[in-house]
Amino acid sequence: MPAHQTKPIILTGDRITGPLHLGHYIGSLHQRVLLQHSSTQYVLMADLQGLTDNGAHPEKVNRYLYDVVADYLAVGIDPALSVICLQSALPALAELTLLYLNLVTVSRLERNPTVKHEIIQKQFTRTVPAGFLIYPVSQAADISAFKAELVPVGEDQLPMIEQTNEIVSKVNSITGESLLVHCRAQVGKAGRLPGIDGNGKMSKSLGNVINLSVSEDDLTRAVNAMFTDPQHLRVSDPGRIEGNVVFTYLDAFHPDTALVSDLKAQYQGGGLGDRQCKIVLNDCLQTLLAAVREERARLMADKPYLLSVIRSGTEKAREVTQQTLDQVKRGMGLFVI
Amino acid sequence: MPAHQTKPIILTGDRITGPLHLGHYIGSLHQRVLLQHSSTQYVLMADLQGLTDNGAHPEKVNRYLYDVVADYLAVGIDPALSVICLQSALPALAELTLLYLNLVTVSRLERNPTVKHEIIQKQFTRTVPAGFLIYPVSQAADISAFKAELVPVGEDQLPMIEQTNEIVSKVNSITGESLLVHCRAQVGKAGRLPGIDGNGKMSKSLGNVINLSVSEDDLTRAVNAMFTDPQHLRVSDPGRIEGNVVFTYLDAFHPDTALVSDLKAQYQGGGLGDRQCKIVLNDCLQTLLAAVREERARLMADKPYLLSVIRSGTEKAREVTQQTLDQVKRGMGLFVI
Repeated sequence: MPAHQTKPIILTGDRITGPLHLGHYIGSLHQRVLLQHSSTQYVLMADLQGLTDNGAHPEKVNRYLYDVVADYLAVGIDPALSVICLQSALPALAELTLLYLNLVTVSRLERNPTVKHEIIQKQFTRTVPAGFLIYPVSQAADISAFKAELVPVGEDQLPMIEQTNEIVSKVNSITGESLLVHCRAQVGKAGRLPGIDGNGKMSKSLGNVINLSVSEDDLTRAVNAMFTDPQHLRVSDPGRIEGNVVFTYLDAFHPDTALVSDLKAQYQGGGLGDRQCKIVLNDCLQTLLAAVREERARLMADKPYLLSVIRSGTEKAREVTQQTLDQVKRGMGLFVI
Repeated sequence: MPAHQTKPIILTGDRITGPLHLGHYIGSLHQRVLLQHSSTQYVLMADLQGLTDNGAHPEKVNRYLYDVVADYLAVGIDPALSVICLQSALPALAELTLLYLNLVTVSRLERNPTVKHEIIQKQFTRTVPAGFLIYPVSQAADISAFKAELVPVGEDQLPMIEQTNEIVSKVNSITGESLLVHCRAQVGKAGRLPGIDGNGKMSKSLGNVINLSVSEDDLTRAVNAMFTDPQHLRVSDPGRIEGNVVFTYLDAFHPDTALVSDLKAQYQGGGLGDRQCKIVLNDCLQTLLAAVREERARLMADKPYLLSVIRSGTEKAREVTQQTLDQVKRGMGLFVI
C-alpha cells in the first residue's frame, strides 16, 4: 500500500452458496456500488466459509460462482473500482488462519455469541465441525490480510469484529509492531430485509427470497404473496404498518419517500387495500430488477469474461494478502523463503 | 508421482524448537539414514507445529532451524536422497488443514487421546489454544499432502495416524475418488530413550538430554551423572539392569551386543561397578558423537549452504503438496484458478 493511500480499505463479500437476492441488495450490494468510488474495496467470494457448514457437500459451495459475479456486475459493482476475489484461491488467508489459531483459546471461541447462536440454529449440538467453531478466526484472517479498516456487517456479526480486533492486538503485541490494522464495523442503517413471509431474514433456506435474477412473473407472484396485516380484512379497515412486509419493502426500495408516507397514512387510517400497495411495490421492484435481469443475462452468456474478472481480482488480492502474511511471519520470527 | 513409483513414501520430521539429541538419534534419525535409500523420504521441519503451544512466543519455534538441519546432515541424512523441507513455507498444508477442519467435529478432536494427554501435560486446562486442539488435523494435512504411506511415530502418536486415516477416508468418499492415501504407522522398535535421570523420555524441557552437539567434557559429565541402580552401593553387590539408564543406553548405542550381555551378567551377579560400565558407555558415545560434532561444526560455519538445502527441498515439497491440494480442491468441486 503506498504511503499516500488515503481511501479507506473495505472488506466485504458473500458466501456463494446461492444466487444473491433483494436482501443482499439492500443489506450490502447497493452500498458497495456507492462506496467503490471513495474506498479501496475488496469483495471476497467466500467459498471456503461456505464449506464450514457444508463440509460433506462441497459441491454446494460454489455452484453459484458465476451467478454471484453476474449479480455483482449487474447491480453496478465495477471490477475496475472494486477487487472481486475468490477466498479459496488466496493461500495467505489459510496460512494466517493457522497462525492466529495459536493465539485464541478454544473456550474463547466457544463463548463467541454469533457462533453459539448459529450452532443452535444449525442444530449442530455435539457435532459442530471444527471448521465451524473456528470460522471467526478465519474471518479475522480475511479482514486483517487485506488490512481492512471498515467491514460492513449486520448487527449479529459484531462479535466477529470484536474477535478480529482481539487477534489484531495480539499479533501486534507479539511482533512488537503495528503490522495489522484494527477494523471498524459498519452496521447498515437499512437493517435486515425480512423474507416475503415476514418471518425473520430473507434466506434461501427459508424459501422466502426474491432473487435478483427473478423473472417478471415470479416477482409479481412473490409480491402478491407478501405478508401484510392479517387483521386488515376490508379495505376500509385501518391497517398496521409494523411487521407489514409490503411497507418494509416500500421503505427499502421506493425512491419516492413522500409517496410512501402518504400510502402509510392512508393505510393506517383505513381506505387503502393491500392490493393497491402491492401494485405500487411491484412496479417499483419490476423497474429495478428489469435492468438487473437484462444485464445479468448478457453477462451469464459470457462466462469467460466472468472468469477473467475473478482471475484478475484474485491476482490483485493475492499480492496484498501475501504481503501481509510475509510481514506477520517475519514479525513472528518465522523464515520467509 | 510417476506410475512406476515403487519406493514407499515416508513422511517424518521434527519440531525445530531445540537442537536434536540422542533421543532423536535413536528414535528416528538413525532409521532415516537407513530408509532414505529405499524410500522417497520427506523430512518436515515442523515450525508451525512448534507454534501450537508457543503461540505467544513465536521467536522460540525456529531459533534452531540451522542447528536442526546441521544435525540432520551431520548424522548422515543426505539431501540428495531425502527431501528436507520447511512446514511454514508450504501453503498447501495450511489450505488442506482448513478444508479438513470441516470434516472433523470438535468432539472428535476433544476425544483424541494424544491431545487429551498433552493438554494435561502442558497444563492448558481451559486455556487450550485452538491451534493445539486442531493439530491432529494439521498433521493429517501434512501426511496426506505428501501421500505418505509410512509414518514413523512413537506409540503415543498412534491416535494421530488413526485420525489421519479417518480424514483420508472422508475426503476419498466425498470426492468419490481414491485421491488420498491411507498411511501406516511405523512404530520404532527402539522405543523411547529415557533421559539421563531415568525420568521418562529425554526432553529439553526436563533438562535431561544429551544433544548431538554436546562437547566431549559435557558428554562425560552427563554419562557420569546417569541414573543407575540406587541399591547398588558396593561393587560386590548384585545390581539391577531394569531402569538402569547406563544399560538402556548400552543396549541402544553399543555396537558389540555380546560385550553388553557380558557386562549385564556381571553387573547382575555382583562385582561390576557403575564406574566401569559408564567408562564403556562414554567411550562408545564419544566415538559416535565425535564424528557428528566435527561435521556439524563444519556445516554450521556455512549457513548459506544449510539454507540452500532447505530451499531446494522446500521447492520439491511445494510441488508435491500443491498437486495434492489441487486434486482435493477439484475433487470437492472448488475452482482452481
